[in-house]
Amino acid sequence: MTDWSRLSLNTATCKPYTLAECVAAAQAAGLGAVGPWRDRVQEVGAETASRIIADAGLRVSSLCRGGFITARDGDVAKQALVDNRLAIDEAATLGARELVMVVGGLPAAYGLMGMSHTPADDTDKNLVAARQRVADRIGQLVPYAQDKGVRLALEPMNPLFTADRGVLTTIGQCLDLATDYSPEAVGVVVDTYHVWWDPSLESSIRRAGHEGRISSYQICDWTLPLAANTLNSRGFPGDGYIDFPTITQWVVDAGYTGDIEVEIFNEEIWALPAAETIARMGAGYTDLVLPHL
Amino acid sequence: MTDWSRLSLNTATCKPYTLAECVAAAQAAGLGAVGPWRDRVQEVGAETASRIIADAGLRVSSLCRGGFITARDGDVAKQALVDNRLAIDEAATLGARELVMVVGGLPAAYGLMGMSHTPADDTDKNLVAARQRVADRIGQLVPYAQDKGVRLALEPMNPLFTADRGVLTTIGQCLDLATDYSPEAVGVVVDTYHVWWDPSLESSIRRAGHEGRISSYQICDWTLPLAANTLNSRGFPGDGYIDFPTITQWVVDAGYTGDIEVEIFNEEIWALPAAETIARMGAGYTDLVLPHL
Repeated sequence: MTDWSRLSLNTATCKPYTLAECVAAAQAAGLGAVGPWRDRVQEVGAETASRIIADAGLRVSSLCRGGFITARDGDVAKQALVDNRLAIDEAATLGARELVMVVGGLPAAYGLMGMSHTPADDTDKNLVAARQRVADRIGQLVPYAQDKGVRLALEPMNPLFTADRGVLTTIGQCLDLATDYSPEAVGVVVDTYHVWWDPSLESSIRRAGHEGRISSYQICDWTLPLAANTLNSRGFPGDGYIDFPTITQWVVDAGYTGDIEVEIFNEEIWALPAAETIARMGAGYTDLVLPHL
Repeated sequence: MTDWSRLSLNTATCKPYTLAECVAAAQAAGLGAVGPWRDRVQEVGAETASRIIADAGLRVSSLCRGGFITARDGDVAKQALVDNRLAIDEAATLGARELVMVVGGLPAAYGLMGMSHTPADDTDKNLVAARQRVADRIGQLVPYAQDKGVRLALEPMNPLFTADRGVLTTIGQCLDLATDYSPEAVGVVVDTYHVWWDPSLESSIRRAGHEGRISSYQICDWTLPLAANTLNSRGFPGDGYIDFPTITQWVVDAGYTGDIEVEIFNEEIWALPAAETIARMGAGYTDLVLPHL
């Protein structure tokens, strides 16, 4: 049997399935870990979720997700911090070392995202200011996260999502933001889908490794044409245009030895049985990633 | 009448219209320039095109486009160089100082793009190598372009297009590539749609200005949700999420005094009369750009 002990199933890849179902499917396939989303954890409670995962002999590669901390408005911003502290608590209970942070988009896109918003938000396209608020709020969350032994794993997002989901776009930018904090407090996510195009990718991965800040390596492919809902336009490794052998080699050379998580948003994949989804993501992993570990 | 003397109509914004129609509409609205695409130039021939534009008292802000120089295969690559030399000739005849270079995507995407491709191309996702071929071929084109007094204006493209249209993604990357050549030979395009998300945008624009390499400033907005055909998902300035006042200020501070071109791919906008399209792009320019010049 191929060694899938470093492979991790992010529950969003099997979106229709409960945590217990995802864990059972991951265990049956010989995976070493799962990366749960908070909704699936909250359905059963973090303590039960932790026990379900531990009983199956799996690790928690990360918890998805904290973030959405770009709000201008005081009350909304406070509420976001409250929710992020709860996410940190859940990560601690789960034994998840890494809390993935999707930091949020521009206030002008809150309406589109169905988020609470004011008329002032609707015209606020100030990207520089939104990024500064992210930096400030990471600073406010760090002491709490450190107390709980949880690392804030900043996820740079493909510029496809800068406006509405994540104003951080490159690993280098996230590392710059992390500079004020210890590597135990703030890390970065290397998700191929989000960063594969970056001309500084090799050097940024090397820097992230050198600084001890690679929180997670996630593999997911860039497919074309994009799906009608561009959020859900991701593919199994090998189905798109990303050079996984090269990027994996860079991540390995940077010293990363952790789990390799597969998080795919794709409506066609969500329609598959969990076992088939895992078999197909495992096949891509076996072909394109495993030989380079 | 508002001063639109630095505003330029890229003919792709009025895609259904001939060069003569675009020129007439631009002239009637008081614009100072047009930026023609090669198809509209070739329909009448470059000499006639040049006369049509000059007779209307307009400048040529740029010629779109050269590029697609990532081919691995010797014959296809040679053909691309032949076509780029023809584009340089056309630019020279038009009196266009700037030839916009959309450098092309990965060989693995040639099939999707309807381009000539081999089985070896179909599996080639090597982004690093594709970028190196771009650098090499720019080097091959520079002497010819310099002889003709034409500058190769490298256009970094939104990472939405890295796989299929343009492997150059940031101004910084283009400036690094340009380093070996004089500022008269190789410049960069600052197109808001393509670069607005870049965390290094301010410093890269400053560097581009300092190096004398800003070939063109183009304004076009990032709108959401993306159109079904993501190539044609661009909006009038003000209709999306880009902070034009801030970016314009950076471009002005970098010393740019040239034309400001509007190139929008959008099927709904193509359905409008040219005069309405120009009025609407002019309104966005007047509101968001002109006050900062």
